[in-house]
Amino acid sequence: MKKSWEKSILVMLKRAREASGPASQLSSKVKSKILKDVAARLKKETSSILRENSKDLKEARQNGLSSAMIDRLTLTKQRIADMAKGVEAVAALPDPIGKVTSSWKRPNGLRISRVVVPLGVILIIYESRPNVTVECASLCLKSGNTVILRGGREAFYSNRALVKIFTDVLKTHHLPEGCVSFVQTTDRDAVDFLLKRDQDIHLVIPRGGEALIRKVAEISRIPVIKHYQGICHVYVDEKADLKKALNIAYNAKMQRPGVCNAMETLLVHEKIAGRFLPLLGEKLREGGCEIRGDQKTCQALPWAKNAQANDYGHEFLDKILAIKVVPGLEEAIEHIQRFGSQHTDAIVTKNRRSADIFKKQVDSSSVMVNASTRFSDGFQYGFGAEIGISTDKIHARGPMGLEGLTSYKYLVEGHGQVRS
Amino acid sequence: MKKSWEKSILVMLKRAREASGPASQLSSKVKSKILKDVAARLKKETSSILRENSKDLKEARQNGLSSAMIDRLTLTKQRIADMAKGVEAVAALPDPIGKVTSSWKRPNGLRISRVVVPLGVILIIYESRPNVTVECASLCLKSGNTVILRGGREAFYSNRALVKIFTDVLKTHHLPEGCVSFVQTTDRDAVDFLLKRDQDIHLVIPRGGEALIRKVAEISRIPVIKHYQGICHVYVDEKADLKKALNIAYNAKMQRPGVCNAMETLLVHEKIAGRFLPLLGEKLREGGCEIRGDQKTCQALPWAKNAQANDYGHEFLDKILAIKVVPGLEEAIEHIQRFGSQHTDAIVTKNRRSADIFKKQVDSSSVMVNASTRFSDGFQYGFGAEIGISTDKIHARGPMGLEGLTSYKYLVEGHGQVRS
Repeated sequence: MKKSWEKSILVMLKRAREASGPASQLSSKVKSKILKDVAARLKKETSSILRENSKDLKEARQNGLSSAMIDRLTLTKQRIADMAKGVEAVAALPDPIGKVTSSWKRPNGLRISRVVVPLGVILIIYESRPNVTVECASLCLKSGNTVILRGGREAFYSNRALVKIFTDVLKTHHLPEGCVSFVQTTDRDAVDFLLKRDQDIHLVIPRGGEALIRKVAEISRIPVIKHYQGICHVYVDEKADLKKALNIAYNAKMQRPGVCNAMETLLVHEKIAGRFLPLLGEKLREGGCEIRGDQKTCQALPWAKNAQANDYGHEFLDKILAIKVVPGLEEAIEHIQRFGSQHTDAIVTKNRRSADIFKKQVDSSSVMVNASTRFSDGFQYGFGAEIGISTDKIHARGPMGLEGLTSYKYLVEGHGQVRS
Repeated sequence: MKKSWEKSILVMLKRAREASGPASQLSSKVKSKILKDVAARLKKETSSILRENSKDLKEARQNGLSSAMIDRLTLTKQRIADMAKGVEAVAALPDPIGKVTSSWKRPNGLRISRVVVPLGVILIIYESRPNVTVECASLCLKSGNTVILRGGREAFYSNRALVKIFTDVLKTHHLPEGCVSFVQTTDRDAVDFLLKRDQDIHLVIPRGGEALIRKVAEISRIPVIKHYQGICHVYVDEKADLKKALNIAYNAKMQRPGVCNAMETLLVHEKIAGRFLPLLGEKLREGGCEIRGDQKTCQALPWAKNAQANDYGHEFLDKILAIKVVPGLEEAIEHIQRFGSQHTDAIVTKNRRSADIFKKQVDSSSVMVNASTRFSDGFQYGFGAEIGISTDKIHARGPMGLEGLTSYKYLVEGHGQVRS
């Protein structure tokens, strides 16, 4: 039996597909103007957005959502102002579309150029934070794509109000509403339905917890850009600068323990462990970080807990650190290959050769030398935006800026050439 | 119940995955040497390859395969020599791996570089031509990937003999056999099994007819690079150079009608149709090409057949051409958007503005101006190789060279930076 929403979703898909032509042809100037208008409207309509948000919050409290969930869901004047700032920042980014990334001439006189184009229709599936709505819609517009937004049911009213700002602004620019679509039903089956529509949608980006991402990847017939886990390592080499190693390890673990580019396991060369671990251990203990170490770590830090087998390769996302003392670089790399998630792994060393081997052999999306894993981020890399961090190798890898939302075409210009 | 082949396939997958580390680290020099050795062995062992091929041919005849299938399956001394030449050409290509494609410094002093890396394990699923075995194994080796080959059951003996040459050469270089694997069973369920193993395989490339590709895309949980159809158009504009238009249209249709970059539909501006169509029609008729035209075409070419609705957007792969007379550029572009397959579409015009509009609005993987669609090809673009032509927009689009078999990682080099 057909679901009640099926017809309206098919209409939405058709509109999104049809809008992708006009969206792809927008000039940089028009795209910037649209985004600036959106930013202005966000500020102007703050009180009505807050009103819609309070409906979500009321339901959330009734449904007994956790305080962390409610915090993620909550909008304030400041948060809306920050959203508007974010949209202005996207408006100011260079337009990726139409850029000629390379161009060459063939012996027969053909001029071949590779030109950046949008992907088409992008589906974003996300959880409670309403700012994802604004961020993703802005980035998709800027990159000439149309977007279908499927936020969490707990943020329904907030998301609908935010999307309406986009569609209102699009209307004033005489652009089709289909540029930014919002899935009106909260029925979860609608997601499964959308994930089968590879004739309409070109890319899916799930943003949220691992369970959501795994489910999307499993069901989807559309390519998915995904990011499962950030099991990041820092390896402190025998030849590390102790002070730098201390700062980097502490920063990688403690600056924001709940995010994907925080360190989860520290590997320390056995020749430096005796000097390094007491220094770091003290600092971590003061910061309230639990340590789970192997035997040698526990010898150096008698107050540390014994690491269990599953502490290595575990994403704690908390003030907990697994530590292992290793006989050398080779074992450190082996450990990373076995337990890592190819997200971000770092070496601290003054030895050029060790750094070179680490850079070459560690196959993570970001490989760092003498820097904190916390830098693995689209903004920190200078992309001006971040759609997500891909731990896949297809299409985009690592922190993804606007470029991740684009493809390319070849232009071949001749003067009558034929093939013989 | 477990299939009899399941255990051996799991062993093969494990070996392929384990070999991908060493394969990714091979120097350009070693990779070239391996490929040159393979080429030498192909020539040296021609007679034993032909012997294995004759087993396939015998079975094929017993099974009543078509003469076209038998031709594709047949190896000769010349064909083996050509294979060897192909492998030498791949050996001579520049190594894509380790190339720094961009590098920049951040205000905090971090140096960020984007470096090309292999994808990992690639599965190739293909049909009867045994030369695909050699071509794909060479390209995957060159790009630092390990490969799992699943050829057609009708080419089993030939493929097995060709793969053995690779594994023998790998052994002499002390490299794991897992670099080039061959699916030993011809049970079709084994393909379905492989397509679910996204934990072991990073990319699937199906090479063959549309039915094969659709089936793979439907079942696979691994990303698929695919190419459904080449419904290529040539639009002859009002301001076309008639002689060039004639050459281009004839070449696009007739130089090799059975391939994906051959023209399937010709669009002609109504103001030039009366002069152009008789010229082209005559030439095509002499060449034995059937024409299926709209009313205006049939007025200009009384011997042409009336086009049926499904002749537009049809991939004839034969000496058959659909023709439509259009009122202008806009309608030509609309027709291409509606009926094309985003493979290759061309305009013939002297008018710069029309060319610019066509280049901007036609969203095909190759957009040509005053050149034959037949140039849409990795070799013609100067890639030195072609894995296939992608009609998708994710990862790779259009003719795919070695670059399509790679990903990248970010190297971040600092001197102790931490995030604040």
